[in-house]
Amino acid sequence: CQCMPVSVCRIAHFNAAHRLHNPELTLEENSSIFGKCNNPNFHGHNYQLEVWVKGEINPKTGFVIDLKKLSTLIRNQIIEKLDHKNINLDVDFMKGKMASCENLLVEIWKILDREIPSITAYGKLHSVRLYETPRNYVEYFGE
Amino acid sequence: CQCMPVSVCRIAHFNAAHRLHNPELTLEENSSIFGKCNNPNFHGHNYQLEVWVKGEINPKTGFVIDLKKLSTLIRNQIIEKLDHKNINLDVDFMKGKMASCENLLVEIWKILDREIPSITAYGKLHSVRLYETPRNYVEYFGE
Amino acid sequence: CQCMPVSVCRIAHFNAAHRLHNPELTLEENSSIFGKCNNPNFHGHNYQLEVWVKGEINPKTGFVIDLKKLSTLIRNQIIEKLDHKNINLDVDFMKGKMASCENLLVEIWKILDREIPSITAYGKLHSVRLYETPRNYVEYFGE
Amino acid sequence: CQCMPVSVCRIAHFNAAHRLHNPELTLEENSSIFGKCNNPNFHGHNYQLEVWVKGEINPKTGFVIDLKKLSTLIRNQIIEKLDHKNINLDVDFMKGKMASCENLLVEIWKILDREIPSITAYGKLHSVRLYETPRNYVEYFGE
Amino acid sequence: CQCMPVSVCRIAHFNAAHRLHNPELTLEENSSIFGKCNNPNFHGHNYQLEVWVKGEINPKTGFVIDLKKLSTLIRNQIIEKLDHKNINLDVDFMKGKMASCENLLVEIWKILDREIPSITAYGKLHSVRLYETPRNYVEYFGE
Amino acid sequence: CQCMPVSVCRIAHFNAAHRLHNPELTLEENSSIFGKCNNPNFHGHNYQLEVWVKGEINPKTGFVIDLKKLSTLIRNQIIEKLDHKNINLDVDFMKGKMASCENLLVEIWKILDREIPSITAYGKLHSVRLYETPRNYVEYFGE
Repeated sequence: CQCMPVSVCRIAHFNAAHRLHNPELTLEENSSIFGKCNNPNFHGHNYQLEVWVKGEINPKTGFVIDLKKLSTLIRNQIIEKLDHKNINLDVDFMKGKMASCENLLVEIWKILDREIPSITAYGKLHSVRLYETPRNYVEYFGE
Repeated sequence: CQCMPVSVCRIAHFNAAHRLHNPELTLEENSSIFGKCNNPNFHGHNYQLEVWVKGEINPKTGFVIDLKKLSTLIRNQIIEKLDHKNINLDVDFMKGKMASCENLLVEIWKILDREIPSITAYGKLHSVRLYETPRNYVEYFGE
Repeated sequence: CQCMPVSVCRIAHFNAAHRLHNPELTLEENSSIFGKCNNPNFHGHNYQLEVWVKGEINPKTGFVIDLKKLSTLIRNQIIEKLDHKNINLDVDFMKGKMASCENLLVEIWKILDREIPSITAYGKLHSVRLYETPRNYVEYFGE
Repeated sequence: CQCMPVSVCRIAHFNAAHRLHNPELTLEENSSIFGKCNNPNFHGHNYQLEVWVKGEINPKTGFVIDLKKLSTLIRNQIIEKLDHKNINLDVDFMKGKMASCENLLVEIWKILDREIPSITAYGKLHSVRLYETPRNYVEYFGE
Repeated sequence: CQCMPVSVCRIAHFNAAHRLHNPELTLEENSSIFGKCNNPNFHGHNYQLEVWVKGEINPKTGFVIDLKKLSTLIRNQIIEKLDHKNINLDVDFMKGKMASCENLLVEIWKILDREIPSITAYGKLHSVRLYETPRNYVEYFGE
Repeated sequence: CQCMPVSVCRIAHFNAAHRLHNPELTLEENSSIFGKCNNPNFHGHNYQLEVWVKGEINPKTGFVIDLKKLSTLIRNQIIEKLDHKNINLDVDFMKGKMASCENLLVEIWKILDREIPSITAYGKLHSVRLYETPRNYVEYFGE
């Protein structure tokens, strides 16, 4: 375009339990690699998700994307499936995958990248960032 | 005393799973009262604990309490027992109690109030505060 | 009671416009006292409200107050009336009052103090705090 | 260059009122698109602005840019024009434009991109980010 | 009074170097008590100071205290003397005192308690809080 | 791989003293350029360091990099050398260099870029960010 790419970010939160465990490894290997995160009774986090959409400004609205619509989409497609859930046991898109922050973020990307075109013609998903704690987080820009 | 009561605060963190469930209530009552927090597979939080000690300043050190010692005490007596644990299943001092933020904080108070005299003659436990999320927290000043 | 008073805090947010102006003063006096805050076209803030309820723990729930109920009450009684509003022009309980943070907080207290007994028998309103900016805020414990 | 591109960021704040409204649309369309943000009496925010300058390190100072000079420039060129103002009514560079965060940020970029060369020969404006709330923000890297 | 005590808080910051060292103790005792904080070449912090003034609301202004005046007083009386200084070497009111957070806060209280009556007849200094790091801080309510 | 580059961030902190001073300039030039930061008795900061590692997800662990190993490496290689130190006097890799945030960050990059391959085969150092205060910070992506 002849254009002004602007990025827009929306933050959301969910609280979930998880456990890091690879069933193809022995108990000793799991314990050695994952330490406290391997607790069979689970532990949990207040996750923070940042969703970035990048594109042109719609001159009619002044928006790249209507943040109310984006907020509703994130809530329906992501937060409802993760909030107050057990990532290992309750979340269909994480079945059979290690419940790491990295894997969770890649699955969140896939869902949002598929759904965001339904609510804007001006922007597309640019990146997602997931905070597991205020000191540990991951970011993904798609493949 | 003829004295200057100064309060000193130390912050610590732990990540834990929990579930709100009262075994004396029916499943319907539990679901009605606790909602998403009643998930049988647990959910979790990044908890933040604030510990306040109040007293006089030791003229030899300029401290009410040595914060390195307080930090070590909090880690050994509280964080080791809660971090990466399931509050309902793994924590002996919460056995038989609702895993609410209020009950957890009262038990933390009891432990710290008993242990802090071993590391300072100038201050005593004044209050504890526990953040379950950045929007929900509880505070306790003892009985 | 023979009891354990625990305080519970819930945070809420609203975004509003306001202007500091005393109609009983001259324009020069208003400008001198309120400076930039006297702009006749208004300015605005992201306000943060903290509501503290203090009391005993209900043994059936482990709660002093159900934070979902408190959150709903704050939204219905306070946030709906202030969010995306002009405090000088749109808010009935601020009519005829200076739109200062102090006055706004006292009015918020009156509403919450009247309404909270309808949702808990174990706690009562203890204090309210209102952040106008991250560097300026006020607190009120009732008369 | 044979060089080490380092980015430097400076944060600034302003408090302003605004309203989202497109005069070419009907009242119903405005209300439908902008919801609460269309309030004719305005609402407001504590905006946070991040300004990134990228370049080489000046060996004489160890700086890409003198942050005191950058801070003064941001205050004179941007904050003075926006702080405690109404973005729709008081800000000349926003006349005739939707008062969205996206449009405001693009205008801020234009001013800073024009002015920053006057205070450094080592760096140039790299990006600007504008927080309208802690959960909603936008970023712009220029055309 | 027949009155509504409201508390008002203002935040300020300063960056300073310091060292914990008691000249009446041996080098070994100093090293044992203060550890890394005893480094003879100093270390430093971004300190955050919170100043609370409590009183009645002035009906003419809606304020307990004019926060612009309080901010100016804090800057002139406290920040100018501490910002970008060495607390052990550069600060007259800390001469001969351990440069601990507790001692520094008590001296800050004395200055503010003496000066605040000059800018308000409605409130008086209620408490001061000093953050040395986001995890360690102290609070003082006067003698 | 045909692959999914994911970035992982770890945060660390250190408290240090420093002074901005160029020995090749006169006292007047130093004072004019560096202002309060030129104080011969030093001042200090709570520095925050963010370390980003980017790469593929190890299918055995779900990790790009084991954050416990990264945290240990950052502590041993960076924090131990900077925490509670004087950057001008105590830090060997800063000898002969201006103690600016920019120069410090470039040196931190060199150390981490050399050491990180020893703890992961899946990711490499992507960027480092250093906060001197919450309002001033720098970022570096390597040469």
